[in-house]
Amino acid sequence: MVTPFNDSGSIQYELFEHNIEKYVEAGIEGYLVLGSNGESVYLEHSEKLKLIEAARKRIPSSMTLLAGTGVESTQGTILLTKEAAERGADAVLVKNPSYFKAQMTFDAYMAHYTAIADASPIPVIIYNVPVFTGVPLQSTLVIELTKHPNIRGLKDSSGDPKLISEVVWNTDTKKFGVLAGAAATLLPTMVAGARGGIVALACAAPRAMLALYRAFASGDYKKAGDIQRITAPAAGAVTGTNGIAGLKAAMELEGLQGGVPRRPLLPLKAEAREDLARIFRRMNSELAELS
Amino acid sequence: MVTPFNDSGSIQYELFEHNIEKYVEAGIEGYLVLGSNGESVYLEHSEKLKLIEAARKRIPSSMTLLAGTGVESTQGTILLTKEAAERGADAVLVKNPSYFKAQMTFDAYMAHYTAIADASPIPVIIYNVPVFTGVPLQSTLVIELTKHPNIRGLKDSSGDPKLISEVVWNTDTKKFGVLAGAAATLLPTMVAGARGGIVALACAAPRAMLALYRAFASGDYKKAGDIQRITAPAAGAVTGTNGIAGLKAAMELEGLQGGVPRRPLLPLKAEAREDLARIFRRMNSELAELS
Amino acid sequence: MVTPFNDSGSIQYELFEHNIEKYVEAGIEGYLVLGSNGESVYLEHSEKLKLIEAARKRIPSSMTLLAGTGVESTQGTILLTKEAAERGADAVLVKNPSYFKAQMTFDAYMAHYTAIADASPIPVIIYNVPVFTGVPLQSTLVIELTKHPNIRGLKDSSGDPKLISEVVWNTDTKKFGVLAGAAATLLPTMVAGARGGIVALACAAPRAMLALYRAFASGDYKKAGDIQRITAPAAGAVTGTNGIAGLKAAMELEGLQGGVPRRPLLPLKAEAREDLARIFRRMNSELAELS
Amino acid sequence: MVTPFNDSGSIQYELFEHNIEKYVEAGIEGYLVLGSNGESVYLEHSEKLKLIEAARKRIPSSMTLLAGTGVESTQGTILLTKEAAERGADAVLVKNPSYFKAQMTFDAYMAHYTAIADASPIPVIIYNVPVFTGVPLQSTLVIELTKHPNIRGLKDSSGDPKLISEVVWNTDTKKFGVLAGAAATLLPTMVAGARGGIVALACAAPRAMLALYRAFASGDYKKAGDIQRITAPAAGAVTGTNGIAGLKAAMELEGLQGGVPRRPLLPLKAEAREDLARIFRRMNSELAELS
Repeated sequence: MVTPFNDSGSIQYELFEHNIEKYVEAGIEGYLVLGSNGESVYLEHSEKLKLIEAARKRIPSSMTLLAGTGVESTQGTILLTKEAAERGADAVLVKNPSYFKAQMTFDAYMAHYTAIADASPIPVIIYNVPVFTGVPLQSTLVIELTKHPNIRGLKDSSGDPKLISEVVWNTDTKKFGVLAGAAATLLPTMVAGARGGIVALACAAPRAMLALYRAFASGDYKKAGDIQRITAPAAGAVTGTNGIAGLKAAMELEGLQGGVPRRPLLPLKAEAREDLARIFRRMNSELAELS
Repeated sequence: MVTPFNDSGSIQYELFEHNIEKYVEAGIEGYLVLGSNGESVYLEHSEKLKLIEAARKRIPSSMTLLAGTGVESTQGTILLTKEAAERGADAVLVKNPSYFKAQMTFDAYMAHYTAIADASPIPVIIYNVPVFTGVPLQSTLVIELTKHPNIRGLKDSSGDPKLISEVVWNTDTKKFGVLAGAAATLLPTMVAGARGGIVALACAAPRAMLALYRAFASGDYKKAGDIQRITAPAAGAVTGTNGIAGLKAAMELEGLQGGVPRRPLLPLKAEAREDLARIFRRMNSELAELS
Repeated sequence: MVTPFNDSGSIQYELFEHNIEKYVEAGIEGYLVLGSNGESVYLEHSEKLKLIEAARKRIPSSMTLLAGTGVESTQGTILLTKEAAERGADAVLVKNPSYFKAQMTFDAYMAHYTAIADASPIPVIIYNVPVFTGVPLQSTLVIELTKHPNIRGLKDSSGDPKLISEVVWNTDTKKFGVLAGAAATLLPTMVAGARGGIVALACAAPRAMLALYRAFASGDYKKAGDIQRITAPAAGAVTGTNGIAGLKAAMELEGLQGGVPRRPLLPLKAEAREDLARIFRRMNSELAELS
Repeated sequence: MVTPFNDSGSIQYELFEHNIEKYVEAGIEGYLVLGSNGESVYLEHSEKLKLIEAARKRIPSSMTLLAGTGVESTQGTILLTKEAAERGADAVLVKNPSYFKAQMTFDAYMAHYTAIADASPIPVIIYNVPVFTGVPLQSTLVIELTKHPNIRGLKDSSGDPKLISEVVWNTDTKKFGVLAGAAATLLPTMVAGARGGIVALACAAPRAMLALYRAFASGDYKKAGDIQRITAPAAGAVTGTNGIAGLKAAMELEGLQGGVPRRPLLPLKAEAREDLARIFRRMNSELAELS
C-alpha cells in the first residue's frame, strides 16, 4: 500500500484508510504497509508506527497484515519489528541492508537475519529488491536462511528465474513460501513455484491482480496468461517508468486515493499522466472483453 | 547450436553434424548456428562460413536455419550476412555492437540495423543479449526497427518483461515475432506474447524444450508450467552457472557431442560436472513421472 | 570521524571524544561527524544529535565542524540540518538520496538541494559517493547547484577526474570548493583543483594526511607525490578492502579508539587484521624515511 | 593512433601516415596501432596487418611501435601477435577477452595471458579498459602475471588508484612498467608510480601531453599539475563525451587528419564540434600563457 501525502508532505491517514476499505471490498486478503512503494525510506519512526496502527484498525483480523521493518541497522530493524508486532502486524518484511555494499557478505547477512528472526515475535519474510538496494540476494543465502523456524518466506522483486527456482527447489514449501514482488513477473513467478505476490499494480488495479491470481490458482492458465499479458503495459508504466508518482496517479484514475509522493520524488507530469490514462483505458477495455 | 572443439582448439565438424542429426530426430524445427553459445566471438571468418555450410547440408530444407552474423562493424555484419544467405541461411540473427558503449545511441543503432536490413537478401532478427554485450536494447528502438520490412523478429535473452510486453503490444505480430532467448524464461516470455524460443538448454535437452513449447502451443499451460519448473535448475546450471563449458558437459550427459570450449574458456571441473549430472538426473526423473 | 560502538552496539562517546583530542593535537583543522564512515545510516535520530553536541564540545570554535545530515527525504534532511546548526555545526554535508534510483532526475535533485539550501542556516556541501548510493551526481547538476548562494562545496568520493575538472572549470572557486573524498585520490584531486579532502584514512593516520596536504599546499609536489604513493596501500586496505571494520582496526593500530562497527557490519577477522598491521608498519617505516 | 576512414568506410592510409609524421616532428617516442581508439574491433584481419606495416614504415626504428593484438580467443590473439612481431612491432598490447564475462575467472585469464606470453616473440603488455570490456582486471591477477618474463607492463585505462598502487608496490618496476591509459588521469597515475601513458588526447594534442610528461619527469610537478588541469576539459570532451568521433574531430582542429569513424559510430554533430572547438581554443590559449 502507498502512503498518501499532501503537497506539504504530511501523511493523509484518511486517504490511507479509504484505500484499505476499497481493497477489502475488492477481496484482497493480505496487506503490506511500509513497503518500498509505501515510501518507507521517507517516513519518520513515529509515522511508521501510526501507519501500522491505522492499517490494523481497518483490516479485518482474519486478513494478514505485513509491515516492512527493514532498516540499515540490525538493532533498528529488531526494534521496529517488535513495535510492529505489538501493533498487530502478522509478519514483517525485511529487506537487506545495502549501504555498505562491499561488506554485505554471506556472513553479515546470515548474522543480520538470524538476529532479527530470533528476536521477532512474529514470522519474518525476506525481501529481495535489487533495483533499489543494489545488492541482489544469492540463492545460497536464502536457502540457508529458510532453515530458521521463524523465517517463513521471500518476497522477490528481481524476477530472477534462477533465484526463484533454486529457492523453491531447495526448501520445504509447506513452511517457506515465495511471493512475486512485481506485477510484470507475477504469473511467471507463480509458474516457477511462488504462492502469490505482493505487487505494486494491485494498489491501482486490485481486481485485475486478484483475477490473475485466482485464474492461476484454479488451473485456468490460459486466462491467467491473458490477464498477465493485458496488464503488462500498466505494470511497466506504474513504478517501472514513472515510479511511485505513476502508481499514485494510476490509483486516482481507478477511484483510489494516492495523494502525491514525498520529496525528493516529484509528482507526475501532465504528459506522463495522459500516457498512463491511455494505458489504463486500454487495459480495462481488454479486461472487460476477457470476462 | 554449440561448436564442438577438440583440446587443441580445432572445430570437430563431424560432432557438429552428429548433433544436428540428433536434433532432427528429436523434432527440432529451427536451428541457429554462430550464436553466442556457438562461441562465434572465438571463430575465424572462414570457420564461420564452413559451419553455415555444414549446418545447411544436414538440416532439411523444410526446416529453418538461422545464422548469427552480427559483428562490431556495420560493414563486417553486412558482408557476413550476404555470405550466410549465399550458403543457404534462411535468416540472420544480429546482436547489437557494444564495444563503444557510450556511443551506441538510438541513432547509431537505427542506422546500423537499417543498413543491414537494406542490404540483406534474407530476413533480419534482432538479438538482445545484455549479459554479454553490456548494452540492453530499448523497446523504443526495437519498436521503431519493426517498421522495416526486412526486420522480422527479436530474440530476447534479457527476459525483461517490460521490453517484451511493450514490443509485443506495439508491433504487428503477424510480421514480427519475439523469441525467448533463455530456457529459464521460455514460458513466461511465451505468456507475454513470444512465439517460441532459441534457448541453450535445447542443445542438451531438446525433447524437454520441445515438450514445453508444444504444451504451451496446445493450451496445456499446466503441463507447460510443470516442465518449466522441472527444467529450471538445469537451465540455471547450464550457461548461467557454468557457461558454455557447462552446456557442453550437459550435452555429453545426454548423448550429444559438445567437445570442449575454445580458450580462454576453460573446460568444466570434475566437481561442477558431478553437480550437473545430479541436476540432470533429477530433471529427467521428474520429467518421466510427468508424462 | 568514525562512531565507536561496543560489542552490544552502544555508542562509546568517551572514545569518540578521545579521538577528537588526538586529532586536535595532530593539527587537523576540519572535522566531519555523521559521514558515511561515521555509520550515519545506522544511527538513530537522537544519537545523531548527541554526536554533534559531543563533537562541538571538544572541537575548538576556531576549527570547522561539518555534520552529515543527508537522509532520503527532503524534509528529514532539512529538519536534521536545522538541528545541526543549532548544535554548532558550521556547515552540513548532504549526500544525494538514492533509494528510488530511476526517479532521482536532474529536476528532483535540483528541487531537493535547493529546498535544503534555502532552509539551512549554515552552508551546504554536496556529497557525491556513488560507491554507496549507486547514483553518481552529474557535473551539469553540480555546476547548476553552485549558483545557489548557500551551496558552497562538493565532497567527491568518486575520484572521477572528468567530474572534478568540469566542476572546477565552471565554478567560482572563491565561493565554491571541491574536496577529495578518498585518500587514494587526494593528491590527484587537489591537482585537478580541489582545496583539500575529507578522507577516511585521516581517521587512522591524521599526520600523514596532513603532511600530504601541507606538502601540496606549499608547492612541494615531489614530497606530496611520495606520501600519496606510500599511503596508497593503506588507503586501499582501509575502507576499500575492509570497510569500516578495517578503518576502526587501523585506528587501534595507531593509538586511536575505533571500537567495533554496528551490525550488520562484522568486526575484522584476525587474518585481515594482520595484513592491515603489516601494511601500516611498512607505511610508517617508509614515511619515517621520507622526512 | 586513430585509423582514419573515408565516408564509405575505407582506411585512408595516406592520412594515417601523415599523422605519424606529425607525431615524429612533435617528439613522440612511442606509438600504438590497433588500440581501442584505433577502432581495432571494426578492422578486418588483413587491414590490421597493413596498418602495422604502414606504421613501422613511417616510425623510426629507434622509436617504439606497439600493436594491439588482443581479440576474444587465445589462439586468435597468438596468431595476430606473431604476425605483428614479423612486421616489426616491438611489443603487443593485449586487452582481456570479455564476452563471456562470468567465465573470465582468475584461472581463465592466467591461462590466456600465459599462453600468449609463452608464444610471443616480443614483450606483452596487459591492457585494462573496463569502460569497454565491462570486466576490470584485478590487482592479484596482474601481480601474478608480472612474474612471467615476457609480460612487461600494464596499460591501465581505469584510473583506479587502488589497482595502480597495488601493482606498483608489488612488482619489480625495473622489469614491469605501468602506463596510464587516459589523459584525464595521466599525472595522478604517474604520481602513483606509472612510467608514462598511452592516452587518446595525445592523438590530437601531442605537444601538450609531451609537455606534461616532461614536466613530471624533470620534477616540475607544479607545471605538470597546471597542464593536467588545463587539458582536463579536452580530455573529458575527446573520447569521454564524444567518443572516437570527438577525437577525430579534435585532430582536425589541430592540423591532423582523423577522417570519420567506421559505422556504427556516427560522425560528430555540428553542435558538438563547436563545443569541442571552444574547449580546444581555451586549452591552447591557457597552455600558451603557461610557457
